[in-house]
Amino acid sequence: MQKQRLLAVARGEGPADLVLRNLQVVDVLNHEVYPAAIAVCDGLIAAIDENCFGYEEHDLEGDFLCPGLIDAHAHIESTMLHPAEYARTVVGHGVTTVIANPHEIANVLGIEGILYLLKAGEVVPLDILLTVPSSVPATNLATSGGALSNKDIERLGNYPQVVGLGEVMDFPGVVAGKERLLNELSLFQGQVVDGHCPGLMGRDLQAYAAAGISSDHECVDTDEAAARLRCGMKVFFREGSAAHNLLDLLSLLNPHNERWISLCTDDLSPGDLLTKGSIDHLLRLAISAGVSPVTALRMATLNPAEHYRLWDRGLLAPGRRADMLVVDSLSDFKPKKVYRAGKLVAAKGQAADRTGGEPREPANLENTVRINWDRLDLRVLAQGTRMRVIGVVPDQLTTVCRIMPAHIIDGESLACPERDLLKMAVIERHRGSGQCGLGFVAGMGLQRGAMASTVAHDHHNLLVIGADDRSILTAARAVAAVGGGQAVALDNEVLALLPLPIAGLMSDDVIERVASSQNEVTLAAQRLGCRLNEPFMTMSFLALEVIPELKLTDRGLVQVRTMELVSLFVEN
Amino acid sequence: MQKQRLLAVARGEGPADLVLRNLQVVDVLNHEVYPAAIAVCDGLIAAIDENCFGYEEHDLEGDFLCPGLIDAHAHIESTMLHPAEYARTVVGHGVTTVIANPHEIANVLGIEGILYLLKAGEVVPLDILLTVPSSVPATNLATSGGALSNKDIERLGNYPQVVGLGEVMDFPGVVAGKERLLNELSLFQGQVVDGHCPGLMGRDLQAYAAAGISSDHECVDTDEAAARLRCGMKVFFREGSAAHNLLDLLSLLNPHNERWISLCTDDLSPGDLLTKGSIDHLLRLAISAGVSPVTALRMATLNPAEHYRLWDRGLLAPGRRADMLVVDSLSDFKPKKVYRAGKLVAAKGQAADRTGGEPREPANLENTVRINWDRLDLRVLAQGTRMRVIGVVPDQLTTVCRIMPAHIIDGESLACPERDLLKMAVIERHRGSGQCGLGFVAGMGLQRGAMASTVAHDHHNLLVIGADDRSILTAARAVAAVGGGQAVALDNEVLALLPLPIAGLMSDDVIERVASSQNEVTLAAQRLGCRLNEPFMTMSFLALEVIPELKLTDRGLVQVRTMELVSLFVEN
Repeated sequence: MQKQRLLAVARGEGPADLVLRNLQVVDVLNHEVYPAAIAVCDGLIAAIDENCFGYEEHDLEGDFLCPGLIDAHAHIESTMLHPAEYARTVVGHGVTTVIANPHEIANVLGIEGILYLLKAGEVVPLDILLTVPSSVPATNLATSGGALSNKDIERLGNYPQVVGLGEVMDFPGVVAGKERLLNELSLFQGQVVDGHCPGLMGRDLQAYAAAGISSDHECVDTDEAAARLRCGMKVFFREGSAAHNLLDLLSLLNPHNERWISLCTDDLSPGDLLTKGSIDHLLRLAISAGVSPVTALRMATLNPAEHYRLWDRGLLAPGRRADMLVVDSLSDFKPKKVYRAGKLVAAKGQAADRTGGEPREPANLENTVRINWDRLDLRVLAQGTRMRVIGVVPDQLTTVCRIMPAHIIDGESLACPERDLLKMAVIERHRGSGQCGLGFVAGMGLQRGAMASTVAHDHHNLLVIGADDRSILTAARAVAAVGGGQAVALDNEVLALLPLPIAGLMSDDVIERVASSQNEVTLAAQRLGCRLNEPFMTMSFLALEVIPELKLTDRGLVQVRTMELVSLFVEN
Repeated sequence: MQKQRLLAVARGEGPADLVLRNLQVVDVLNHEVYPAAIAVCDGLIAAIDENCFGYEEHDLEGDFLCPGLIDAHAHIESTMLHPAEYARTVVGHGVTTVIANPHEIANVLGIEGILYLLKAGEVVPLDILLTVPSSVPATNLATSGGALSNKDIERLGNYPQVVGLGEVMDFPGVVAGKERLLNELSLFQGQVVDGHCPGLMGRDLQAYAAAGISSDHECVDTDEAAARLRCGMKVFFREGSAAHNLLDLLSLLNPHNERWISLCTDDLSPGDLLTKGSIDHLLRLAISAGVSPVTALRMATLNPAEHYRLWDRGLLAPGRRADMLVVDSLSDFKPKKVYRAGKLVAAKGQAADRTGGEPREPANLENTVRINWDRLDLRVLAQGTRMRVIGVVPDQLTTVCRIMPAHIIDGESLACPERDLLKMAVIERHRGSGQCGLGFVAGMGLQRGAMASTVAHDHHNLLVIGADDRSILTAARAVAAVGGGQAVALDNEVLALLPLPIAGLMSDDVIERVASSQNEVTLAAQRLGCRLNEPFMTMSFLALEVIPELKLTDRGLVQVRTMELVSLFVEN
C-alpha cells in the first residue's frame, strides 16, 4: 500500500525517493525559517527532519526551500502560448499551480476548448486548474464561436481539475438579480465563485457579495480592496501586462487581513512573461516595496491554496505535495530548482524539457478562422454626413462615442488618416457567414496600411483597422491564411505577422519567437503611425461590447449603456 | 426567487425581515469594530449599513454584534444532557454551531445513535454538525453496544451535517500504518480528519500528519502545539471539565499562526456548563489572560468555520448566515441576545424556549441496559495469593498496575477497604449476556458501599466499584432500573441516583436538575470515603482499554501495553 510506504519513510524506517539536505525550510504558516532536510515519497513530503535517507540525495548547500508558487488567476491565452510552452515557461519561474480561466478559448470553441486545456494540462509539468468561465458568450450582440450552456457548466464542474466558477464579469447583472446569472451561481452553491467587479462599491458591492461571490482581482486602490474584505470577499493583488495594481494595494496589507489576500497575474503578454517573469516577479516587487519575503510568499502559496481549497498544497509539511522551489535568496526569488510532486521540472529558470511532446492539436483547434470572402463587402455607403466614431482612450479598455463628419467620396464613406479617422471591420470568423460589422475609429494614429487580429475580446472575430480597403484585406487575409493571429499590412504587402493557429489565440512556437513576433507586429503598426504603446492590446478591446461606451462587433455598432445596436450615421 | 429578494434588500430596495440598528459590528477578519446597522433577510445577512429598513427593527443602543460562536469539538454526551436541553443551554452562551463527535452514543447504539443525534439536531435552535466517530468500538477486548462499519461510515459521510472524520484516537495504529485505519482514512480523503494524539512528537507525529490528519485538540503545552502547527496540523485550544489546557497554550499565539487555532470544550460536565458556560467561558479566560477580544473571538468564529469549511458562517458579512450575538462588553462576553439564522433563540442567557418539544425518545434509546441478573456471579474465587490491581492516579486517565496481596476468606477474594482495595465489576449491559469482568482497584478511597455507572468509556458497560457485593448489587440494580445512570448505594439502600435513560448516557431532565443530581452522587461517594475530586469521571475511565496501564472490561483485565487479557492472579 502506497500510504504505508509513505508512513514508513515518515517514521524514518524506509528510504525516501528523494532527500534534499542542508537546506532552510521556509514555513509560511508559522513565518519561520529553519534548517532541516526533507524526504519525498511518491510525490508527497514524508518528513522534514535532519535524519532522512533516500535513493536519491542532494545537498542544497544552505539554500532556501519554499512551497511551489500558485498563480491565483491567469488567462493562459493572453500569453499567446501553447499550454505546454506556457507550462515550461512558468515552472521555470517557480509556479507549480495556476488557476486558469479559459474564457477566451471558450468563446471560440465552447466546451471543446476547455476540454482541450484540461487534456493539455494532463501532460505538462504544471498543475493547470480551471475555473469555469462565466458569461460565454458575453451578450447576443456579437457572434461567438462557442457558448457554454448550464449543462456544459455542470459537466465541467465535475472535473477534478475544476475548482470553481470563474470571474463573474456581469456584475451589474448579478447585482440586479438577473435570473440567468443566479441560475449559473446556483450551480456552484457553496463552492468557490470568483468575482470581477471593477469600481463596484457600497450597497451594490454588498449585493454582489450576498449573491455568493467570494473574491475580486480587479481592485485598483486600497478603498476598493478594503471594501471587498469587509464584505467577506477575498482580494487578489494583480500585476499583469495591462493592469499594474500590486504596488498601489500593498499598504492595505496587515497581519489580520493578509490571510485573505493572494497574488495573481491575470493577463501577461509573452514579452512580459519572458522578461519579467510570473508570480516570482510579483514577489520581487512586493519585497522591494517592503513586504517581508515570507509574507509575500504566503500570498502566493498558502493563501491561494486555502482560497481554492487545495488542501494538498500551499506549505511544506508531511503529507503535502512535494511542490517545492529552491532559491538562494529570499529577496530576489530566482528559482534554482523547481520540483513538482517531487519531480525536478526546472533548473536554473529552464524547464527540464517541454513535456507534452510536439504540439499537434486536434484539427478543430487549428481551423477556427472560417471566412466567406465572397460575401465580404467592406464598402460603407454614405447614409448621412455625420457618424458615430469609436474614440480610443489610450491604455484604457473603455472608449468614447465621438460624432464626426464622414469623409465621403462617390457616395462612399472612407477612412481619412489626416483626421485620424480609420475604417474598422469586425469580420465574423467562426461560421463563415460573411457577416461583417463596419465602422470608424479615431485615436489609433495609423497614417497608412492596416492591422488585423483574431484576438478580439470576447468573441474573437477577425478585427481589422486600416487607412484603405486594400491594406485591410491584405492584413485580414494574412491572418486568416495562418489560422489566426496578428498582422500589419500596407497595400498588397504583409509587413509583419504573428501566427496564432490554436483557436486564433495561441501560437505553437516557443516563447522567445512569440515574444519577438509580437514585438514585430507592434513595431510595424507604430512605424505606420500608430501612437499607442500596445496597439494590438488596445485594439483587442474595441470589439468588447460590455465595456463602455461605443464598440463594434460583427453585428454592428453597440452602444453599451443601453446594450443596443445603433446606426453608424447620425440622423439629421 | 428567494435570492432576488436578498439582493433587493442588499441593494437597499426592499424591506428586510429584521434590522438591528445602533450597533457596533465586530469584524473578525479585519480586526475592526465599526458602527452600523444590519439587515437580515431569509436567515442571511443582506447588508451592513446605516441605511437599512425592515419589517422588524430593534435599537441595540450601541451594543456589540459578534458572529455566533462555534465550538470546534465537543461531546454532547459528556454534558449528560438531552440534545434539546444541550442546545437550549449553549445557545444561551452564544454558541450557534457545535461540531459534535457522537462517539459515546455510537459505542452504545452504533449508527442508530448517530442518526438519532442528526434527527434531534434538526429541531433544536443550534447547528449540531457531526464528525463521524473513528474506532467504534475501540478494540475487541470489550463488548460494545454498537459498532460502525466502513459502510456505516460511508453512509454517514453523505449527510450534509457531517463535516468530516472525528478525532482519530488510535494514533499508534495510524502511525504504524494499520490497514483498517488507512481504509477508514481513505473514506475521508481530502476531507477534514480531526486528530487526537496526546504526547505524540517527532517523526511519529510527522507520520500521523502525513496520513492526512488535519488537527489536534489534545495539546497540553506549547511545544506539542508548535510541533503540530509545523506539521501542517491545526490546533484547538481546549478548556473542558477534565482538561484545562487553554491558559498553558496561549503564549504560542502570534499573528502568523493564529488563523490555524480554534477553541473547543471537548468534555464539559453539566455543572461546569451551568456555572462557567461554554465557549464564552473560554473567551473570557483568554481575554483575562491578555488576548485581544477580537482575536479571541476569531478563534471561536472564523477559524473553526474555515477549518470545517463552513463557508456560510464565521464572520458578519453580506450573504453569510445571520448567526449573531449581542454583547455589551467585549471583555465579559455575556450574550444579551443570540440570533441563529436571523431568529432570536436566546435572550439574557436563556434560550427563548426548549425547542424540539418533549424529549420522547425512540424506545431503543431508552432501553439500552439489558442485564442477565441470573447469570451474574460477582464472586472471585482465589486462584493465588497476589493480584494485579488497578491503581488509580488522581485526575488522570491512566492507571498503574499494582501487585497486591489478595484478601482471601473461605476461598473467595474480597474487597478490603482498610487497605483501599475495592472490588470492581464491569457488567455487560448491551446484550444481556451475563458476561462480567471482575477485578480490584486501589486508590478510590471508598470505605463502604458502592458506586455504579453506565458511563464507562468507551463501551459504556455497567461499571461498579464497591466494598461489598450487596452494595455493589444494590447500586448496579438502581442504575439498571432507570435505564442507566449513576448511583451510590450502601447495603440495600440507594443513597443517590442520577438517571441517564437515554442510551445510559444522557438525561431527559433540565440542566439544573442534572447538575444537582450529579453533585449528589459525587457527594454521596465522597461521604462514603472516596477522596477523588470527580469520583465518577475518574471511574468512567477505569474501563477504557486503550489508555495505559491496567484496565478492566466485561471480558476481564486488559494489559494495555500488549493489548492482551491478563489473569487477575499473578502466577507463582
